[in-house]
Amino acid sequence: MSKKPMNEAERRRLAMEQSLTQLGNLIYEQINNHEFPWIHMQSRSIDNIMYDPEERQYVLGPRMIRRHSRNIRHIRPFTQLIWTAWFSKELVRQRKTSTLREVYYSARGQRDIEYNDQTESDNIITDLEVALNRAREDFHIFPEERSAIFGDLTIEYTVPGYEGRRMNLTDHPDGVMIGPALTSSEFVDTSADKVLVIEKGAMFTRLVEEKAHERFNAILIHTAGQSPRSTRGIINRLAHDHGLPVYVFTDGDPWGVHIAMVIISGSANAAHLRGLTTPDAKWIGVWGSDIIDYKLPTEPLTDFDVKRLKELKDDPRYKDEIWQRELDIFMKLGQKAELEAFSRYGLTYIVDEYLPAKLES
Amino acid sequence: MSKKPMNEAERRRLAMEQSLTQLGNLIYEQINNHEFPWIHMQSRSIDNIMYDPEERQYVLGPRMIRRHSRNIRHIRPFTQLIWTAWFSKELVRQRKTSTLREVYYSARGQRDIEYNDQTESDNIITDLEVALNRAREDFHIFPEERSAIFGDLTIEYTVPGYEGRRMNLTDHPDGVMIGPALTSSEFVDTSADKVLVIEKGAMFTRLVEEKAHERFNAILIHTAGQSPRSTRGIINRLAHDHGLPVYVFTDGDPWGVHIAMVIISGSANAAHLRGLTTPDAKWIGVWGSDIIDYKLPTEPLTDFDVKRLKELKDDPRYKDEIWQRELDIFMKLGQKAELEAFSRYGLTYIVDEYLPAKLES
Repeated sequence: MSKKPMNEAERRRLAMEQSLTQLGNLIYEQINNHEFPWIHMQSRSIDNIMYDPEERQYVLGPRMIRRHSRNIRHIRPFTQLIWTAWFSKELVRQRKTSTLREVYYSARGQRDIEYNDQTESDNIITDLEVALNRAREDFHIFPEERSAIFGDLTIEYTVPGYEGRRMNLTDHPDGVMIGPALTSSEFVDTSADKVLVIEKGAMFTRLVEEKAHERFNAILIHTAGQSPRSTRGIINRLAHDHGLPVYVFTDGDPWGVHIAMVIISGSANAAHLRGLTTPDAKWIGVWGSDIIDYKLPTEPLTDFDVKRLKELKDDPRYKDEIWQRELDIFMKLGQKAELEAFSRYGLTYIVDEYLPAKLES
Repeated sequence: MSKKPMNEAERRRLAMEQSLTQLGNLIYEQINNHEFPWIHMQSRSIDNIMYDPEERQYVLGPRMIRRHSRNIRHIRPFTQLIWTAWFSKELVRQRKTSTLREVYYSARGQRDIEYNDQTESDNIITDLEVALNRAREDFHIFPEERSAIFGDLTIEYTVPGYEGRRMNLTDHPDGVMIGPALTSSEFVDTSADKVLVIEKGAMFTRLVEEKAHERFNAILIHTAGQSPRSTRGIINRLAHDHGLPVYVFTDGDPWGVHIAMVIISGSANAAHLRGLTTPDAKWIGVWGSDIIDYKLPTEPLTDFDVKRLKELKDDPRYKDEIWQRELDIFMKLGQKAELEAFSRYGLTYIVDEYLPAKLES
């Protein structure tokens, strides 16, 4: 892994600040020209979201919308968007981070900005992503969920007070939290030759205890359910910038399958973003066929599970034969199995037998 | 803070192993004496759980029960208990940890052990806690939730492969995960003079960014909602072994209040355990009166919130005047406020103004 220059993160921060300043300048210019200010952006309406087989993810189509302050129905979201851009610029300039929820409450302190609820505010933040063509993490707005990472990866912090400090991710054996500091760090060096992504904390802890990072020469990532976008960004960086193959290991049910799929192909909600998907990542289990092959303890599928399986069957991301086959097996079995189901063969079976077999195939 | 001998954790582990071995020996002895084996334990039925104003927590009363393998209705839970004790002994002996869910699935691999669902298995683990008078973390069974800690505290690991290695909890600016390794570590040294416990990840990150640990000379703990027991154990250790005052900072609603109360006085579910409560911890907000004093943005109480407030009013842990007063204010206002509500005055208001004022009073 080649070392990047130390000021890469600072360069990114300045580019973001500049991009927000440009947006502001554009508005000022329009006003100076005696125009009602407006902005142009891609439409996020359902009929403009399509699956792109080349990019192997959902993307926005060509339709553009104009949000215009001359239009009385647009004044509210236009003003909200400009305020959010100002707020984001302050975050970036002051090297602070914030969360979706804090942004919503910060708006409530403003006399002229009004939100009915957090959904409205979250939605405007997504508009700003589209307008700037950047993920909100780039303008320092993070979600609240936390996932974790462990293994031989040396990072270098770029957050204030820690610039240039390094840490190896094996330093804390409970795993290292993926928050703003880890997300913005540089990846300096690793001896790992793969990434193993695990849906659940219990299995992550099991793999750490069994030294799976050494035995499989892997970086371990715990998504804590559906991966936060910053975690998907980290998986993407390890796969694309550092060439590591990625294996995803989830519960054997429609929800687990979809956690893997969102890592691989992204979500419709993030159709306007790039750099969050890892199309070459492999979902290695728990497959429907594993339930049979390994005689795993199961639970019956609920009506809700079955409904979800049917939705996935029709989803363009699931069109490949292997996905269709596995979805059919779950449906036919009428059963699902959790990661922990392998414990029936002893706590170490999963690292001694199952994972080696899966990684080989 | 005085340094403990390095083998304290090993001593605890061996004591636990011995205690489980004794339980096994007792059973063997009974069998050798041609008795049907049985064990004696405190009853956990509701009428034997009472609030102890001296201990300032719920405790089990004097009623004992005998679980006897001669009684056909007892054979199932008796066998489950003995299997769980064997499983725990293996964990402790092999220096492994496990989770409630893994224990349940491990049982499903056994020919002669049967559980209808995980609730039954969790319940037997609680029985084993009562029988041994120890928390399940002591016999290496952990929950899945993760909370975090940050600040100037140097710990020394005791988990295999890390024995004697030290880490300062300011090393990772996203906060350090509280898992089995942190829970079993020794607390070597700290310059902090207080502990600040925060319910939410977003506010924890805010406090880290604003260097609240330096400004208030505090160790910061993020509970991620209702505190896991291992986190309550850590708060207890910092308060009792190291004499640090503890301040708890939660959402201003019945759920936030109760997060603080469980840290202070424990829960009925853990009436059989000691060392998890911190009766001198102070709940410093968000109070009902803060909503008025700070003109915080609020949401109306739901019917569910109101029902919960009424339950808390009648709960013996809430009998003190200050609690009754605050519960009454919430009820009268009909409103609640989240921690993030302070963002209306800017992101740093909470550390610049609110917390200093609260900590002073």
